[in-house]
Amino acid sequence: MTQKKLIVSVYVFVCCVVTAMGQSLKYYNADDFPLIGKMSDDTEGRYARLPLSCKGESKKWVWILGQDTPGLAVRFATNSTAIATKWVTKRNNSMSHMAMVGVKGLDLYVLKSGKWRYVRCARPKGKENEGVIISDMKGEMNEYMLYLPLYDGIETLEIGIEEKAVIRQPQVESPVTERPVICYGTSITQGGCATRPGMAYTNILSRMLNREVVNLGFSGHGHLEYEIAELMTHRNPSVIVMDFISNVSASMLNERIERFMSIIEDKIPGVQILFIEHVPFPLAEFNLKKGEWVEESNEALRKAFRELKKKGYQNLHYLKSEHLLGEDGESTVDGEHFTDLGFDRFAKGIYPVVKKLIRHAER
Amino acid sequence: MTQKKLIVSVYVFVCCVVTAMGQSLKYYNADDFPLIGKMSDDTEGRYARLPLSCKGESKKWVWILGQDTPGLAVRFATNSTAIATKWVTKRNNSMSHMAMVGVKGLDLYVLKSGKWRYVRCARPKGKENEGVIISDMKGEMNEYMLYLPLYDGIETLEIGIEEKAVIRQPQVESPVTERPVICYGTSITQGGCATRPGMAYTNILSRMLNREVVNLGFSGHGHLEYEIAELMTHRNPSVIVMDFISNVSASMLNERIERFMSIIEDKIPGVQILFIEHVPFPLAEFNLKKGEWVEESNEALRKAFRELKKKGYQNLHYLKSEHLLGEDGESTVDGEHFTDLGFDRFAKGIYPVVKKLIRHAER
Repeated sequence: MTQKKLIVSVYVFVCCVVTAMGQSLKYYNADDFPLIGKMSDDTEGRYARLPLSCKGESKKWVWILGQDTPGLAVRFATNSTAIATKWVTKRNNSMSHMAMVGVKGLDLYVLKSGKWRYVRCARPKGKENEGVIISDMKGEMNEYMLYLPLYDGIETLEIGIEEKAVIRQPQVESPVTERPVICYGTSITQGGCATRPGMAYTNILSRMLNREVVNLGFSGHGHLEYEIAELMTHRNPSVIVMDFISNVSASMLNERIERFMSIIEDKIPGVQILFIEHVPFPLAEFNLKKGEWVEESNEALRKAFRELKKKGYQNLHYLKSEHLLGEDGESTVDGEHFTDLGFDRFAKGIYPVVKKLIRHAER
Repeated sequence: MTQKKLIVSVYVFVCCVVTAMGQSLKYYNADDFPLIGKMSDDTEGRYARLPLSCKGESKKWVWILGQDTPGLAVRFATNSTAIATKWVTKRNNSMSHMAMVGVKGLDLYVLKSGKWRYVRCARPKGKENEGVIISDMKGEMNEYMLYLPLYDGIETLEIGIEEKAVIRQPQVESPVTERPVICYGTSITQGGCATRPGMAYTNILSRMLNREVVNLGFSGHGHLEYEIAELMTHRNPSVIVMDFISNVSASMLNERIERFMSIIEDKIPGVQILFIEHVPFPLAEFNLKKGEWVEESNEALRKAFRELKKKGYQNLHYLKSEHLLGEDGESTVDGEHFTDLGFDRFAKGIYPVVKKLIRHAER
């Protein structure tokens, strides 16, 4: 949430009136409300992660996934007893191992006694979507956060409230947007395969920390792309979580890690950087080749970490992964990608470490 | 797993040879291996829950959902390093708030040191499906359990193994099939919205108890259907979990509960019956009408329970629900239907109670 957006006029364009569930609803353009989760405002359309400077530079799929909206959320306040949305997705994506609500739906939370509490999701039908998220509420003025899709993008987004209710700019800065946390990595970082947007671990972590967490996860990638390292320096992050190793081979790591790190360290030397090991996902327990891959990756990561330390890189930290998903083998949908159960465990596992590192960065 | 099926010939019809991931695979008809989770073998096709006697009697959607396969699982043993499947679904169902793997996919578990451990799912593409679930395993002879779809049915099912490997009847009776547990209820009981079949609470409970758990959940129903009460008496269950209240009004409850209970008590008087309250799902926290509905339902259930006790019904038990989903409000996908996180919590919550009641029934 940038200062510019915080002071945007309370006047919003009323674009539509409909009747749903017996209530007259007015729709307001979500563009007029603060958006969290972006590193740069210089994007192709408002609801995107990668800036235009990446357009020629990033690999095709990094750019495409950079138009997806994991980690992005719209903040607003209203006293409406009902909240509805209309949204148009970018690529009308679908995947068999992830609920469509997580892929291209929306997820509403409300601030209660200083904590974000889940209200309900908006279920997608296809490219163009519309629906009442919640109705029959008390009608108190509340702060809301609407999480955007994890594996699709948003072309347009409107928020519907009762005709006589008020929608306004948020009055509370939650999550705190100064010195955000950045999570960089893979499909799992991007949110695969949370049932709904609020359950990606980056979003859980943001609620736990009360801190903006920027999601720079790219399915099938997280290949230490130099332009992404450059992007990380656009704001003044407190912590960067490096959660990329499950997509990076030892040779790719050795080839790219030092330049990647130097881009970050040169511009934001005070940032705390946390490397997270490849989690021991269930597939690796039975598939011997996958098991070897996990061991080799983690060995390469440990070696690279030691060498970076030797070369004088400061503020580097390393988190072992063996207990991050619990011991019962039930945390994933396909032996690799986390379910809500896996994301809940993973977020709770890394939370105390990230919290400590934020304090360290802000000392 | 009935005795008849346990002694089925080890000879199985080899119906197909294909090459996948560089391995030659032979496919075996799953009909030749034991199936758990059914109350009756007199069904329209092998992979169905409701017997033909319900066909004219049950409401249209109870019958249709009765052809879905929640709780059903095929047991086999093999020393193959790879396991594949081909399956044809009945209605090629899809839902936006549930991963397709849970709706119409398959889920493989292996028995390790007496405990069922998750291996991997088979991801569906549509009506006809095929895929390698796991490869590059050690090639030890292991016991396997393949869970069937939660919100669709199976027309045909084949299990693929390496050409030179052996597939055979299970050598261990796990879960124990004598005196099964029955869970009767709603869409949640049926498994909505687990990410994969193994995470429906009835299947988690079965693994925890090492006991066959029959799933008699019917989305949008669980309206105390008398023919379902009759069906429950076909085997000699130890415990019946009555998890229906979220779909039943006070007037429906008062009208139907006594006849429903008398059908059960007349035929299987030793069964222990556990009533579970409407869980305080997140939607009820914000939607005042839903909140009232939950309170009214639970009040009606408590009253009905007390009256049944007064009328001399024995072996009735009542479980309060307030802590069954945890306190953080994060257990559902849509404020009502459980995610894997919700099912994990719910199963762990009811497990000690059901375990005690099994001991009670078997005294």
